Amino acid sequence: MVNLKEDERLDYLLAENLRIIQSPSVFAFSLDAVLLARFVYVPIQKGNLLDLCSGNGVIPLFLSARTKGHITGVEIQERLYDMAVRSIQYNGLQNRLQMIHGDIKDTAQRLGYGKFDVVTCNPPYFTTPSTGEVNPNEHLAIARHEILCTLEDAIKASSDLVRQGGKVAFVHRPGRFLDIITLMRQYRLEPKRVQFVYPKKGKEANTLLIEAIKDGSPDLKILPPIIVYNDNDEYTKEIRAILYGE
Amino acid sequence: MVNLKEDERLDYLLAENLRIIQSPSVFAFSLDAVLLARFVYVPIQKGNLLDLCSGNGVIPLFLSARTKGHITGVEIQERLYDMAVRSIQYNGLQNRLQMIHGDIKDTAQRLGYGKFDVVTCNPPYFTTPSTGEVNPNEHLAIARHEILCTLEDAIKASSDLVRQGGKVAFVHRPGRFLDIITLMRQYRLEPKRVQFVYPKKGKEANTLLIEAIKDGSPDLKILPPIIVYNDNDEYTKEIRAILYGE
Repeated sequence: MVNLKEDERLDYLLAENLRIIQSPSVFAFSLDAVLLARFVYVPIQKGNLLDLCSGNGVIPLFLSARTKGHITGVEIQERLYDMAVRSIQYNGLQNRLQMIHGDIKDTAQRLGYGKFDVVTCNPPYFTTPSTGEVNPNEHLAIARHEILCTLEDAIKASSDLVRQGGKVAFVHRPGRFLDIITLMRQYRLEPKRVQFVYPKKGKEANTLLIEAIKDGSPDLKILPPIIVYNDNDEYTKEIRAILYGE
Repeated sequence: MVNLKEDERLDYLLAENLRIIQSPSVFAFSLDAVLLARFVYVPIQKGNLLDLCSGNGVIPLFLSARTKGHITGVEIQERLYDMAVRSIQYNGLQNRLQMIHGDIKDTAQRLGYGKFDVVTCNPPYFTTPSTGEVNPNEHLAIARHEILCTLEDAIKASSDLVRQGGKVAFVHRPGRFLDIITLMRQYRLEPKRVQFVYPKKGKEANTLLIEAIKDGSPDLKILPPIIVYNDNDEYTKEIRAILYGE
């Protein structure tokens, strides 16, 4: 049983046999979230995982299929937080998935410093533009623009919350790559694994996956490229496997 | 007519209809040099180009096929400098290709600050290890290890030599990516284009191409991946086109 509000839908997370509440006017997860949940290192049997800027809880839900550990999601928008809570209940995962309604800037004070083995974050991608350019839909604007959470806020919070030797993984646009690296190093997160996602063969990358280790030693690896669409504009085999488990 | 010494060979630069003097015991160019010469932006009709750590002059020779500008190569090892000079003469390019025998750390004082539109560099890749691990062949050791030229020396020299708004392009290993970015920004070179080279589909990148603009504005693009070998361990179509013009 699930209580759907307004234009909400109960969508499938196909490859994982889970379902998730989405709404086109409030929040629908993107491929980027799916790729991050698959990219990040996770301890399989146990562990304490945290997802910042969780939206409708897509990353905690995906992660629940990869680990038996405990996963906490943090979301500042009550409407999205509420969708995530109902999705977790619908999937019967409330014993190890927990949502927190709050600001990532206060989360370390609330939950404790250095308590997490893994922190993930799919932050808003766009720096706050002039008022006219922001999405007039407040939910979408907050999810997409650095209105309530800048890149530095997200990286600082991740560093505060992860334990020494723990992992922090972000998804973002390649245009912010140098900023991410600079900020991560500033907050003692050493980048270790990077993977670029290309919309098509022969095109520039449009997405960046990066994982750092708190107080890790410098040694960066560039993982194999991910290509999203083939020449016929269909998902590649690799992406179909990720999305649909084919 | 060409005067070949000891075990030197007169090899073809196939795609370019040029020839180059090489020697397995002294210096033979790598695919990395070819990829850098193709990756870097070059003004087509004129311009002042500089190649640091030139070795046997492979990058100046390749660049000569892409631009009508003037190209200078700098090489510290007299034996390699001499090979480059003879290759340039053999190809009849001495009117616009020039080699300088010297240290890149003195080159800006010798040639002038900010006089070049484009600077390329395929520097030694390996930090100087303990004596036992360095190649006992001095020529190869100097070309491969940071004995006479560190990464910082090469980036500082490039920044000194390039004009404001000019381009600086390096090829290196991905493990040094963060160092390269940090040093480039320290010396006012803003990274703008990066391309990763993967030995094979599904493998981590083993080579990095990066181009920066002196005093450029931040905006990094990640170019499409280059894959070197196909599943049958033959060069891919893309690499064959670069090497043989097929």
